Amino acid sequence: DGDTFECNYDKLLIATGASPIIPDLPGIENEGVLPLKILEDGRILKAYLAEHNVKKAVIIGMGYIALEMADSLRTRDVEVTMVKPRSRLLPWLNEKLSNVVWKELEDNGVELYSGHTINSISKTNNTLTVHCDDRDFHCQLVLPAIGVKPNSELAKEAGLDTSIHNAISVDRFTNTGDPDIYSAGDCADAYHVVTGKKTWVPLAVQANRAGRAVADNLFGEGLKLQGIASSAMFRVFGLEVARTGLNPHEAGEHGFDPVEITIESRSRAHAHPGSTTMHVAMVGDRQTGLLLGAQMVGREGVAHRIHAVAVALHAGMTVADFWQCDLAYAPPFSPVWDPLLTAANQLSKKVQ
Amino acid sequence: DGDTFECNYDKLLIATGASPIIPDLPGIENEGVLPLKILEDGRILKAYLAEHNVKKAVIIGMGYIALEMADSLRTRDVEVTMVKPRSRLLPWLNEKLSNVVWKELEDNGVELYSGHTINSISKTNNTLTVHCDDRDFHCQLVLPAIGVKPNSELAKEAGLDTSIHNAISVDRFTNTGDPDIYSAGDCADAYHVVTGKKTWVPLAVQANRAGRAVADNLFGEGLKLQGIASSAMFRVFGLEVARTGLNPHEAGEHGFDPVEITIESRSRAHAHPGSTTMHVAMVGDRQTGLLLGAQMVGREGVAHRIHAVAVALHAGMTVADFWQCDLAYAPPFSPVWDPLLTAANQLSKKVQ
Repeated sequence: DGDTFECNYDKLLIATGASPIIPDLPGIENEGVLPLKILEDGRILKAYLAEHNVKKAVIIGMGYIALEMADSLRTRDVEVTMVKPRSRLLPWLNEKLSNVVWKELEDNGVELYSGHTINSISKTNNTLTVHCDDRDFHCQLVLPAIGVKPNSELAKEAGLDTSIHNAISVDRFTNTGDPDIYSAGDCADAYHVVTGKKTWVPLAVQANRAGRAVADNLFGEGLKLQGIASSAMFRVFGLEVARTGLNPHEAGEHGFDPVEITIESRSRAHAHPGSTTMHVAMVGDRQTGLLLGAQMVGREGVAHRIHAVAVALHAGMTVADFWQCDLAYAPPFSPVWDPLLTAANQLSKKVQ
Repeated sequence: DGDTFECNYDKLLIATGASPIIPDLPGIENEGVLPLKILEDGRILKAYLAEHNVKKAVIIGMGYIALEMADSLRTRDVEVTMVKPRSRLLPWLNEKLSNVVWKELEDNGVELYSGHTINSISKTNNTLTVHCDDRDFHCQLVLPAIGVKPNSELAKEAGLDTSIHNAISVDRFTNTGDPDIYSAGDCADAYHVVTGKKTWVPLAVQANRAGRAVADNLFGEGLKLQGIASSAMFRVFGLEVARTGLNPHEAGEHGFDPVEITIESRSRAHAHPGSTTMHVAMVGDRQTGLLLGAQMVGREGVAHRIHAVAVALHAGMTVADFWQCDLAYAPPFSPVWDPLLTAANQLSKKVQ
C-alpha cells in the first residue's frame, strides 16, 4: 500500500474524527447521491448543484444536518422531500416542540415522510428514484444524512478501548489508557456532566476544548475536562432550536426519576411589538429536585438562552436554585419572568 | 388629610416602590418638564407629544432609561440632546464598551454633552431652555432621568431599618426585622450573590421574585432568597447592552483583587453572513480565580448570553470552571468558541 509509512512517537494524538454513516442501500453509489460531513463534501454538493438542473432533492434522515440542508436547498428553490424510517421527527426532542418544527418545515414547502423504510436507490437517465415500501420518490439529488460514526478503527487495532457508539475511550485528561496515547475530537468519547457517565456527542465545542486539553496534558499541565452537557442548537427556516442536558428518556435510562413540563411563553414583554411564542420543555429529578435538562423552540431568543441552563447543569443546580438566578430583563428581550424562569417555577412544583 | 385612614393588620407588606429623583433645579416645575417612572408618566409624555409640536427634547441624565427615551424620541424624529454633569457615559460600564454605546448614539443623531452641570430650566413662550455653566439648550421637552430612589419614608417613620441608598432593609426571607412586617419591590434592598452584602438594584425581576417570596413567607413556607447578581440589559438603537455581577471598581470596593479583560469577538461563525462585532468585558478575582462579572455590547446575541454568566455567579464558579461549560454552537449564532468562552479563556490566564 503506497500510503503506508512508519513514524516513531513519544506521545501520540489520535484525532481521526468521524465519518458520515452511508446507508447500506442498493444504488447508493449512483452519481447524485452525496454524503455530508467535511468541507469538501459541501464543495462537491455546491458544484453538483451548479452543474445539474436539480429541481428536487430527497434527503434521507431528519437530524439537524438534514434540516439545515433542507433549509439551504429551499433557499435555492429546490423542492425538498425528507424521508426516514422512524416515525418521530427529532426523537430526542419533546414531542410538542418537535411538532412545532414539523409545522415549520411544512410551512416552508418541505415534504416529510417519516415511518418510511428506504429499500434502494435507482437511476434512469437523469432521474434518481428513492424506493420505499409503499412509494417512490423521484429527484435529481439524494442526500443521505443519517448521522456520523467515530473513526475508531485505528485505535481499536492498536488495542485501545472504545466505549459508547464505538468512540475511543478517554479519561478526563484525554488519555486513552496507554500513557503515551491521547485522543480528542469527534472520534473520542466524553463524560456527561449530569450523569457522570460516558457519552458521545460529536460536536465542535467539545472537540475544540478536548484538543486544547491534549496540548496542555502533553506538556504536563494537567487540564481535567469536566465533561459535556449535550448542548446543541440549530436554525431551521425561521425557528431556533436548542437543547442541553437530558430528556426524560435519557434521564430515566440513567436512574433518575424524571419529570418534564412544557410551557409556552413569549420572546418579548407583553406590550412590546414583535413578540413571538417560545416553547420550553424542562426536565428535573422528582427525588432530588435536580435540574436535568431543557429544550427550547422559538423564532428568537432561543439559542443563547440555552447557555444559562448548560451552566446550571455544570453547577449541579436544583430546579429551585435555577429559579432564583438573576436573569436580566428588558422589554425587547423577554417577559419580566424569563421563559426559563417560568419553566423552572412550573417544574419546581413537580419535584422534591 | 382626607387620604388618611387606619387599618389593623396581622402581617404587613410594605411595597411602596421607588420614585424618580427630580433634580432640585430652578424651573423644574415648568410645563414640559416630565419625569419618568410609572406607566402614567409614559401616558402623560405620549399625550404631551401628541398635543405639542416637539421638535427637540433635552434629556437630563444618560442612564438606560434616558437612553431608551433617546431611542424612542429619535424614532419619532424628535431631535435629542442628552446632558449630564459627570463625564463618563454609563460609568458602571467598561470604558471601551461605553465608547461603543457613545458612538451608536452619535451615529443616530443624538447630541451628547457629558461633564455639563445643569443650573436651571426656564420657559419663554413655547420654548424651554436648559441652562448649563457654559451653554444653553433650547427645546420643547425636558426629561429628567437621573435615577430613582426608594420610597422608604413610611418604613423609616415606623422605625424600620434602612440600608444602602436608603432602601428598606430586609433579610433573605423579605422580613424587615419586625416579625410581622415584610417589604419587597423597588423600595427594598437585597443581598448580592457575589459579595454577600446588601445592595439596591430596583429592577423588575428581583421585585417580582421578592413579591413571591413574601407570599410564601406570609404563609410560613419559608422561601429564602439567594440574592441578585445586578443583572441588567437594554437595547439602544441597534445595540444590545448587558451586564451582570461586579465591575472592577465594585469588586475592589468589596475586597476582591479584580482583573478585567476585554475581547472583541463575532456574533456568528467566521463564514456566516451577517456576523457583527461583539465586545465582552469580563472580571475575575486574581487571588481565588472566581468569576466576578461580565459586560457585553453588540448588535445581536448579547442580551440572552448574559444569563449564562448570571447563573455562573449564582453558582460561585471560577473563571476556569466557566470556561469548561458546554455552551452550544451553531454557525448562525456563534463562533465555535462562544465569545463568553473566549473571554473566560483570556481571563483565566490572568487569575490564580
